[in-house]
Amino acid sequence: MTGQRVEALFFDVFGTVVDWRCGVARGLEEALAPKGHALDWQAMALAWRERYQPAMAAVREGRRPFVKLDVLHRENLLSVLDAFGVEGLGAAEIDEINLAWHRLDPWPDVPAGLARLKKRYILASLSNGNVRLMVDMARRAGLPWDAILGAEPARAYKPSPEAYRRSIAFLDLEPSACMMVAAHNGDLAAARAVGMRTAFVARPHEYGPGQATDLAPAAEWDMVAEDFGELAHRLGC
Amino acid sequence: MTGQRVEALFFDVFGTVVDWRCGVARGLEEALAPKGHALDWQAMALAWRERYQPAMAAVREGRRPFVKLDVLHRENLLSVLDAFGVEGLGAAEIDEINLAWHRLDPWPDVPAGLARLKKRYILASLSNGNVRLMVDMARRAGLPWDAILGAEPARAYKPSPEAYRRSIAFLDLEPSACMMVAAHNGDLAAARAVGMRTAFVARPHEYGPGQATDLAPAAEWDMVAEDFGELAHRLGC
Repeated sequence: MTGQRVEALFFDVFGTVVDWRCGVARGLEEALAPKGHALDWQAMALAWRERYQPAMAAVREGRRPFVKLDVLHRENLLSVLDAFGVEGLGAAEIDEINLAWHRLDPWPDVPAGLARLKKRYILASLSNGNVRLMVDMARRAGLPWDAILGAEPARAYKPSPEAYRRSIAFLDLEPSACMMVAAHNGDLAAARAVGMRTAFVARPHEYGPGQATDLAPAAEWDMVAEDFGELAHRLGC
Repeated sequence: MTGQRVEALFFDVFGTVVDWRCGVARGLEEALAPKGHALDWQAMALAWRERYQPAMAAVREGRRPFVKLDVLHRENLLSVLDAFGVEGLGAAEIDEINLAWHRLDPWPDVPAGLARLKKRYILASLSNGNVRLMVDMARRAGLPWDAILGAEPARAYKPSPEAYRRSIAFLDLEPSACMMVAAHNGDLAAARAVGMRTAFVARPHEYGPGQATDLAPAAEWDMVAEDFGELAHRLGC
């Protein structure tokens, strides 16, 4: 990696920074088990996440105006509850389950890694999650973001180029002074397409035992690290 | 103060959180004294700040599209340099002086007060300063914002109601669950007009020895505190 110094690191969050699968499964179980439901909570979390890309596609393709991810998550939750035969929940109960996405735990290497990286780099979230979701998650998990950027401030969902370009513009940087950190090759490809540097950190447990995608870098990314600790080391922190 | 619990505190920054006058005067002196200039740096800082409201008025009144405060500050700096007889600076030197606004010191009570308040409340900046300015300032001064909101994400300058309303909307809160903290009565009046709670913290040295405005609350604000320590105490932190 040569040329302009990297000044800011932008992070994908769901999967890269936090374990959404276990956190969402836990949230579903905590809400529904006391009501007598005995379901495959992990499968339910995966089913909820499966509806994520199609929901955002409607916004990306201009078929509906931008709405926050919390709104899309709630619509998708109704579909998942129906698919798993859960009936009779009130609106407030559904709202509460939807907040599971605000209460996700970081991967074990994340807090210490981000603390090291923050000393030298501006750290920004570049997630499809909305600002309040990111704020709640960061306060609970101790994620030291300097700025919460990404879909809601940019009013565009990744991998639309505007999601990256507008996030970078908030920091007045050239794309080449920005590095996207993600566990997803597709996210890095979109970041590279707008001129950002790229760092791949594999999260082989994101989707559980059956994970078949994003187990390894699919291109010559600028950096590949085992975890955020190695990323900090490689970036001179 | 009764009714709905306050969940988020929004802060005015220039004057309320940081001492812009001394920081800007220092930045001007550090840049220009080595070039042989001996000017009244405090007066120069005040002259720069005097051009702030008229510059934003052009945006607020729709006479020009939204531009970041860094852009307005730089235009105003050219006018101040001219007024004080400073000639011959290069573009990079002018850019560097403009960064004085990114390097302002907090009032002495601020870091400890914000750390206490953060335990119980979401803390957001609601400044006319742009995101990168706020990020640089927060990293240098240790301001623990959960989110940087205000003019740039809202694309509206205070005291336009949109600057407050759109900042609140990023956090999905009712205005009555939000408290604006400011040393300026006008800022609080605009916040109250959109339904926010209000807290006045006097900063009698903001404008220097001759300060004649905002020395005391001009209305029955929900809270009046001597400094951020008292504010934290009054808010149960």
